Amino acid sequence: MPSLREQFQPIFYPRAVAVLGASRHPLKFGFNYLRALKEFGFPGRLYPVNPELDEVLGYKVYPSLAAVPGPVDLACVSVPARAVPAALKECLQKGVPGAQVLSAGFGEEGEAGQRLEDEVAAIAGRGIRVIGPNCFGVYSPAAGITLMPGSEFSREPGPVGFFSQSGGGSCDLAYMARGRGLDFSVLVSYGNGCDLEAVELLDYFREDPNTKVVGAYLEGVRDGRAFFQALKRCAREKPVVIYKGGLTETGAAGTLSHTGSLAGSLSAWTAAIRQAGAITAAGLPDLVECLMACLCLPEFTGMSLGIMAGGGARNVEALDAAGHFGFQVPAVGSETAAAIRPLLPPAGGRAGNPTDLANPVLAPGAIGPIMEALAREPAVEALLLYQAIFYMQKEVRRFRPADAAAPALKLDYHLALAEIAKKIRAQTGKPLLLVLPDVASDPDHLEMEAGRREARRHYTQNGIPCFDHAENALSVLARVAARNRRAAKRP
Amino acid sequence: MPSLREQFQPIFYPRAVAVLGASRHPLKFGFNYLRALKEFGFPGRLYPVNPELDEVLGYKVYPSLAAVPGPVDLACVSVPARAVPAALKECLQKGVPGAQVLSAGFGEEGEAGQRLEDEVAAIAGRGIRVIGPNCFGVYSPAAGITLMPGSEFSREPGPVGFFSQSGGGSCDLAYMARGRGLDFSVLVSYGNGCDLEAVELLDYFREDPNTKVVGAYLEGVRDGRAFFQALKRCAREKPVVIYKGGLTETGAAGTLSHTGSLAGSLSAWTAAIRQAGAITAAGLPDLVECLMACLCLPEFTGMSLGIMAGGGARNVEALDAAGHFGFQVPAVGSETAAAIRPLLPPAGGRAGNPTDLANPVLAPGAIGPIMEALAREPAVEALLLYQAIFYMQKEVRRFRPADAAAPALKLDYHLALAEIAKKIRAQTGKPLLLVLPDVASDPDHLEMEAGRREARRHYTQNGIPCFDHAENALSVLARVAARNRRAAKRP
Repeated sequence: MPSLREQFQPIFYPRAVAVLGASRHPLKFGFNYLRALKEFGFPGRLYPVNPELDEVLGYKVYPSLAAVPGPVDLACVSVPARAVPAALKECLQKGVPGAQVLSAGFGEEGEAGQRLEDEVAAIAGRGIRVIGPNCFGVYSPAAGITLMPGSEFSREPGPVGFFSQSGGGSCDLAYMARGRGLDFSVLVSYGNGCDLEAVELLDYFREDPNTKVVGAYLEGVRDGRAFFQALKRCAREKPVVIYKGGLTETGAAGTLSHTGSLAGSLSAWTAAIRQAGAITAAGLPDLVECLMACLCLPEFTGMSLGIMAGGGARNVEALDAAGHFGFQVPAVGSETAAAIRPLLPPAGGRAGNPTDLANPVLAPGAIGPIMEALAREPAVEALLLYQAIFYMQKEVRRFRPADAAAPALKLDYHLALAEIAKKIRAQTGKPLLLVLPDVASDPDHLEMEAGRREARRHYTQNGIPCFDHAENALSVLARVAARNRRAAKRP
Repeated sequence: MPSLREQFQPIFYPRAVAVLGASRHPLKFGFNYLRALKEFGFPGRLYPVNPELDEVLGYKVYPSLAAVPGPVDLACVSVPARAVPAALKECLQKGVPGAQVLSAGFGEEGEAGQRLEDEVAAIAGRGIRVIGPNCFGVYSPAAGITLMPGSEFSREPGPVGFFSQSGGGSCDLAYMARGRGLDFSVLVSYGNGCDLEAVELLDYFREDPNTKVVGAYLEGVRDGRAFFQALKRCAREKPVVIYKGGLTETGAAGTLSHTGSLAGSLSAWTAAIRQAGAITAAGLPDLVECLMACLCLPEFTGMSLGIMAGGGARNVEALDAAGHFGFQVPAVGSETAAAIRPLLPPAGGRAGNPTDLANPVLAPGAIGPIMEALAREPAVEALLLYQAIFYMQKEVRRFRPADAAAPALKLDYHLALAEIAKKIRAQTGKPLLLVLPDVASDPDHLEMEAGRREARRHYTQNGIPCFDHAENALSVLARVAARNRRAAKRP
């Protein structure tokens, strides 16, 4: 039996893809998947299959899989549910090693669908690995393949491995992650998971050298015991973040009709995920932030913060969040306060921990030495800077209203601050976390939002996690630090 | 003694403002406040006062308050803390009825500062009402006055009354609220609150006919008993939303150094605010969403939802949120399901409650009848639509890449949907809530974010509250409905 990586190779890195159920109809998956691969720029051989067509989107269409000249790595199946077993048997005859079944109408639609799904699973057991049914397939930027509706995903491969029972959730996640500077090794939308599912995907990502962190959206698993063993194996090697949907009684009803999954109870899942050494996420946005923090802070274990914020309410907000999630904000020595005081604006500031910067727009030349002073305190393990970039940009606009150099000035600010943070981290091991609040929510403030997004991406790509609120930042940091402590304790 | 409204009139609607401590220095409050009023377009008389200057920002400067010709309604004091008592005594002599003291350096700076603050309070008792010290002042769009850094605030008056011990928090809130279509009657940043504070502000907003909902950011109050009585009085008449900072032990340390306030305990405050009939908010963004929901749903009391979402994971997310916050999602009759089924796309949808729309981009012509069918179910009290507008805009862009009419098409969509929702509400009393998730977080997706913001503002201005996540939506709805139930029960 080939190794897991050998089994997955043709599905995640196919060189030749056949689309069974190719279509010209713009509402059919068999059209949209072809279009997605074309627009995404799949560099391999693409074989649409449909006995009734000659050509679609400029590709020659083959009457059957048997008629396709040369080998096929991955079959993308989008024929009606009842025709799926026959299509997969064609794949077996042709020697196609992997398939993804986009078609819906299986276990999620009751008993008759479940019988069809069992038939698919049985065929898979005869020598073809199947992703799906009821899924959007695989997004593998290194191989140039994408989800059925993912033609605009990033072409950049990255360190995040992700698998999801939801296709829509996979798309949401891919777009949200990109905004945080995160790219993917492989993203798998696997729907009902009748053959390949969580256990093997965890084992795969554990072994995959391109994957540094692993995330998943799950509705249910076939074998809870096997899943938690695989989760434990994977979480020993890499951070794993799990968002489990359907954990309320009300929500569980939804998983049954979505991917036919039995969801289980909230407390049991949460405790078991944590015991396996993984991180639980409370939704897709939270999952993205956990993955970002895992990548930015792979070894961080501290629970003691130095806090800097411009304005009293922002300090109170950060302190309240620290209190909620069990962080310490230790008082600093009088020498530290004395070093910070002359760096603050003339009025309204306060040197100490937290340091009230008085102003949302303090220059890196002033913030840098304050960060250094706090980082020199032995009890401080991480720095949290609450930066109201919105106000900074308003000031930039005010003082340079007609100056083409203003955008450069804005980016300069963040480049300088990130450099200082990296230097402090290299010298002391103490990371910086940023809170860039989403104040500019008005349609008229889009220019400000553009700056926030550019800044956020720049920071996250430089190992500085960025959050919208102090509450998110410290909720995520507490879980990541707890995960890292557990990982560090292992023999 | 003049009534509360008479006492507040000169502060909230001044026709002549004197700025004591006017300055030419761009870092001084005495310069920035003048500039703010000038840029905001204060239509009244403006008298800078400083014995050392002749002119600033084009205004004639007076050597003393006594030298100002004619009456002054509001004195804005930005002299150093130690000179504030003398400045207020000048106000008394001139017969100025109200002052706002921007200067810091009072109770928040320890014992000596507290003595100075007590002196200010004593002077206030002799016949001048004082906002502050250590504040940003009053924003009153109808009168053309604004906070010290609020020159770019909206000029539109609106139904929200807000008071805050934090100046920075006030600015954040004003900008965040604007993005949700909310404008202000009066917004008061009152800092340490040595004279006018929460009790009288609650009484004022209770009486003010321009104020429909009241919000507050508090760090502490002078007299807890009087505060809760005033809160109860106000909450009987109008929805009141309170965000109390410093409710963790860690956070309480911050309130002491910010506005010199003793913060109190989390459980005591939360219970007391609720018992008084008000709504507790968990932060400024949550407070904005609660105010928006209060305005959109002034009488809504239901706990039973009809849910519509395009895609299984989004349905599961909405159902889980419903479960977390105690909502029911009742099954609907087979006739309702039969009415919905033909309106869904050919594959992947599911008629019922929730209805899986299959597609994030369903036309109003299809969504409208689905909403109507769900609203006809007696057990359904509100409709929740999870709308991935990001994907809709991508589709619009795809099919009309070079067409100038595309933005109009987008807005048409929302206009049509809002009209349908308003019609259903008028006929059945059942409101629509929207979740417009923040998927397009990438710097490259700003055009999509623009559409989300335009849509959000259009919906909220039409009585349809919009949220970023189902979790926020139902957390806020549960609190607003509970508040409305309590209000409805009163004799």
